[in-house]
Amino acid sequence: MQETRLDTARIQAAHRVIDPVFRDTPLYRCEALEPGLGCAVSIKLETANPVRSFKARGTEVVTSLLAGHGAPAVVCASSGNLGQALAWSGRGRGLDVTVVASRFATAAKLDRIRALGARLELVDGDHEMARERAAALARDGGIRLVEDSLDIETCEGAATIGLELVDSAPSFDTVLVALGGGALATGVGHVMKALAPGVEVICVQPLGAPAMTYSWRRRRVVTTESADTIADGVAGRYPIPAVLDDLLLVADDVVLVREGSIVAGMRMLLDHAGLVVEPSAALGVAAVLEDRDRFAGRHVVTVVCGSNVDVDAYHRWVGQAPVHRS
Amino acid sequence: MQETRLDTARIQAAHRVIDPVFRDTPLYRCEALEPGLGCAVSIKLETANPVRSFKARGTEVVTSLLAGHGAPAVVCASSGNLGQALAWSGRGRGLDVTVVASRFATAAKLDRIRALGARLELVDGDHEMARERAAALARDGGIRLVEDSLDIETCEGAATIGLELVDSAPSFDTVLVALGGGALATGVGHVMKALAPGVEVICVQPLGAPAMTYSWRRRRVVTTESADTIADGVAGRYPIPAVLDDLLLVADDVVLVREGSIVAGMRMLLDHAGLVVEPSAALGVAAVLEDRDRFAGRHVVTVVCGSNVDVDAYHRWVGQAPVHRS
Repeated sequence: MQETRLDTARIQAAHRVIDPVFRDTPLYRCEALEPGLGCAVSIKLETANPVRSFKARGTEVVTSLLAGHGAPAVVCASSGNLGQALAWSGRGRGLDVTVVASRFATAAKLDRIRALGARLELVDGDHEMARERAAALARDGGIRLVEDSLDIETCEGAATIGLELVDSAPSFDTVLVALGGGALATGVGHVMKALAPGVEVICVQPLGAPAMTYSWRRRRVVTTESADTIADGVAGRYPIPAVLDDLLLVADDVVLVREGSIVAGMRMLLDHAGLVVEPSAALGVAAVLEDRDRFAGRHVVTVVCGSNVDVDAYHRWVGQAPVHRS
Repeated sequence: MQETRLDTARIQAAHRVIDPVFRDTPLYRCEALEPGLGCAVSIKLETANPVRSFKARGTEVVTSLLAGHGAPAVVCASSGNLGQALAWSGRGRGLDVTVVASRFATAAKLDRIRALGARLELVDGDHEMARERAAALARDGGIRLVEDSLDIETCEGAATIGLELVDSAPSFDTVLVALGGGALATGVGHVMKALAPGVEVICVQPLGAPAMTYSWRRRRVVTTESADTIADGVAGRYPIPAVLDDLLLVADDVVLVREGSIVAGMRMLLDHAGLVVEPSAALGVAAVLEDRDRFAGRHVVTVVCGSNVDVDAYHRWVGQAPVHRS
């Protein structure tokens, strides 16, 4: 294939610097999901770790490089999984971590970032404003700004999931990956194309936040006016050109799914796999639900990429109402 | 220590015959649980596999021995985790698996046993009647009856969890293990006493099914008239003498917890760890909740041993009522 920004040897090296608690995550057939989905289904589970998402694979790579160079601090804009992951990874390596977030972000997620020892700075605006503030802090302080998907370490960290899939001697036909900024999709996609080219890579994005999908289809960056989805982990509006270039090389298809399908996917993962997942982690199941004929008779792996979800919102979505809670 | 029935070298050999999908399960600090529990907490997660419990570690050992000897079939009495695990392990090794269960068992669990290819025979009585029927089938057919906790393979299979805890270079002070028939408790306990004797082993049983706890305290088998607990995985009334002997050698303490604490533990694991667990998997958290002073400042590992739970019952217990479900 043409070359992406990612490098397979570097990804293999990245796998070795990631704390074992984030590596070699469960990969297993989930037969109880199969009657409802009409195909063989395996789960790659990225939630059973201290930050409940795959993002620490990337922050482990970034922070180990920074610590190796004697850097004292690091900053990012995030109201969710990246912030928690950077806080965890930075704390373990003695880095001062600053996370900039919108004050409108979910309180529970902001609490977790603080609890992991990061300095949390809130801005009175959206994620774009948080990004600008984080960039200013980095510039003024001379410290590293971690930008998800743009920074190669975030892509290559996520790509280590692909290595583990390949090392499992894959019997699957298709990998389903959530698509937001693109770190996970280009990471896993790169490894599949390099080491298991027979495996189809399908990226899944919410219909309510379709910027990268439109960009992939038109082969040029398309931004959107708004993003409206419960899948906050993938709700971007400004695709990064370099990431789009990589995605064009590694994605076999990019599909959009409706909010109702995401919720149905979350509910199926709860009812039949016993998994509480955040909306972005249900995108793969949602894609199968929307096009069962396409996947009939195939074996798909879906990357369950995170479980950081507000409990009350979760129950509202999956149709369980809180009653008489203490 | 005095010798249990278990053998550390055999346990190490057992670890090698268990399908990798059940081995090397996640072990991670869960800081979000810690403010509520007042101590450091790590989770050993035994639910992210095809049968959603630790029981397959034991059935993998049994069925690989049987298949090695050319046995054609195997039978057990179970309405839950053992039946699913034996069905999974036997199917993979070409064994005919029969599971005998009470017709009053949870329909969803019985469906899973059938779906995994086992022949399911229902008896019109309780688990004791199912055991008698399974024993008769074994005797008449000349086939192996798998008896949980009595059969050394079930204990040594479960003990491989202990190996993995020890291999993690433990920084923890205490392991909390669910106590039912005793396979998990004596298995993990044996390995800790043999290889990490500084780690305290505390077994936890529901107050509503206290037979083994009473037996441990009085150092002789005590049976109970009834068992009344939502923790069906550990609801026995007839402790096995040989298992009690082992438990007396390896348990530092055995504690009883109330049903309300089990439910509170399940809710904490959902709210703060994002884990859906069956009641027996919440016993460790329940034990901390009932005696926070005892664990203050310590680092405990709790084995989250299963997630096979009826979804409606689960929501009833943790205080979520199903609404407008499709």
